[in-house]
Amino acid sequence: MPTTSFLSKIEASWRGGSLVCVGLDPNPQALPPHLGEGAQASFSFCRAIIDATADKVCAFKPQIAWFSAFGHEDVLVELIDYIHAHHQTPVILDAKRGDIGETCTAYAIEAFDRYRADAVTVSPYLGLENLAPFTERSDKGVFVLCRTSNPHAEWLQNHPQSDPTYLRVVRAVVDANTQGNLMLVAGATHAKELARIRGAVGDMPLLVPGIGAQGGDLSQVIKAARTPKGGLIINASRSIASASKGEDFADAARKSLLALHSKVQALLSERTDQAS
Amino acid sequence: MPTTSFLSKIEASWRGGSLVCVGLDPNPQALPPHLGEGAQASFSFCRAIIDATADKVCAFKPQIAWFSAFGHEDVLVELIDYIHAHHQTPVILDAKRGDIGETCTAYAIEAFDRYRADAVTVSPYLGLENLAPFTERSDKGVFVLCRTSNPHAEWLQNHPQSDPTYLRVVRAVVDANTQGNLMLVAGATHAKELARIRGAVGDMPLLVPGIGAQGGDLSQVIKAARTPKGGLIINASRSIASASKGEDFADAARKSLLALHSKVQALLSERTDQAS
Repeated sequence: MPTTSFLSKIEASWRGGSLVCVGLDPNPQALPPHLGEGAQASFSFCRAIIDATADKVCAFKPQIAWFSAFGHEDVLVELIDYIHAHHQTPVILDAKRGDIGETCTAYAIEAFDRYRADAVTVSPYLGLENLAPFTERSDKGVFVLCRTSNPHAEWLQNHPQSDPTYLRVVRAVVDANTQGNLMLVAGATHAKELARIRGAVGDMPLLVPGIGAQGGDLSQVIKAARTPKGGLIINASRSIASASKGEDFADAARKSLLALHSKVQALLSERTDQAS
Repeated sequence: MPTTSFLSKIEASWRGGSLVCVGLDPNPQALPPHLGEGAQASFSFCRAIIDATADKVCAFKPQIAWFSAFGHEDVLVELIDYIHAHHQTPVILDAKRGDIGETCTAYAIEAFDRYRADAVTVSPYLGLENLAPFTERSDKGVFVLCRTSNPHAEWLQNHPQSDPTYLRVVRAVVDANTQGNLMLVAGATHAKELARIRGAVGDMPLLVPGIGAQGGDLSQVIKAARTPKGGLIINASRSIASASKGEDFADAARKSLLALHSKVQALLSERTDQAS
């Protein structure tokens, strides 16, 4: 596997001590007013967050919807290019794409060739076989939605109780993981389920949204699903990028990240102490 | 409800006698070589298919992936503008978006404000509550993936046998349909399930892919799920738009569409005869 693969990059980030991923969601209503509006404001906002946090994050996760809604595809291209050029941080494009195989060919081109993302989030609803155009790119990471952190998700994902859909997704992803680049999205708001998922997937990287604004318990997440290498990509979006809407937004983002980073570090060493 | 709502448009199409929707998937490998390459070829191809078929289709369904993969968003904007300016045909943007509610706000802006689509396809995986930013646009149609036409979909959608996920989606969509603009995607390749879906949703419009290249049985589809007003948006993509790769591709598309249209008409009147 080439050293620039997503898995190599994320493992390098973990070795560097970081398990936190910062989401880049340039919702115009969340931008600091002094940045103005439009494509330039979106770029300036994200670039400042990137530069203020890159040394302590394991990945960046831009949400494509906040670019495509406003025709800011070029901003997203430039931001990912910027990350590749100035930082070693891997980029997970949050797109939740999913379709028949032929259409997934086009979505894989979008994520990996157009945007040069290192990984992408995808949906399992049409069946994992359709995701082959993503997984065939063995240097890229493919995060399959499994148990999401939002309210109302259990209606589908935890049905039926005896053999919930999210666990079927887990088993299917393990079975389909011939390239070693399939991974899962598993929310921080369901620590018991996170533990069941970890029990089934070995050391597969898990992208864990739901810390911060959604109220997931960091301590439980780390207990439930950390691995010796790290194993977790703990996403925080609003709690970092929107820590301040003032001119100090980048400094505030860095402070918020460092606080979260320290908590993660403390929980990791606590657990190591207990284990020894 | 304004007369320009998606539902009004599709019912007008049905009154005009058409239940067939043409998919616009400008896969570069499928384009007639004489059109050349790039954005201009994509636009010329789609516009020619549109002009050759618009009088006999109930809707157009562009697949966003074949535009966004190559940075051809402007082509998609121009094509939808072209349809609105020159034809009355409603446009269903096939995007299969799905995310938490805040992100769906951005995806709804993408589909309805940026692209001016009349309807969009969405995924239920994160729960229907998240789709509110789409459904709040009461003049727009929102097609929720339910039972898709592709192989391998039953693994998730038909699990468990006693209360399959696709039927849960059906019930939840019926319950959530306070604006009257929720609809379902239900594949032509599963006529028995299509009949169960029709039995549960009243006269809700169903988008039915899987006729043509995927081998769904038109006669069974119409028997299973037509309604007095029409009820069906029967999609055909490759079998029409790729009927020829020669300079006659638009004529060939029209011939292919007219053949399908005639079959639909014959099956509809056959059924009316039997009923009378």
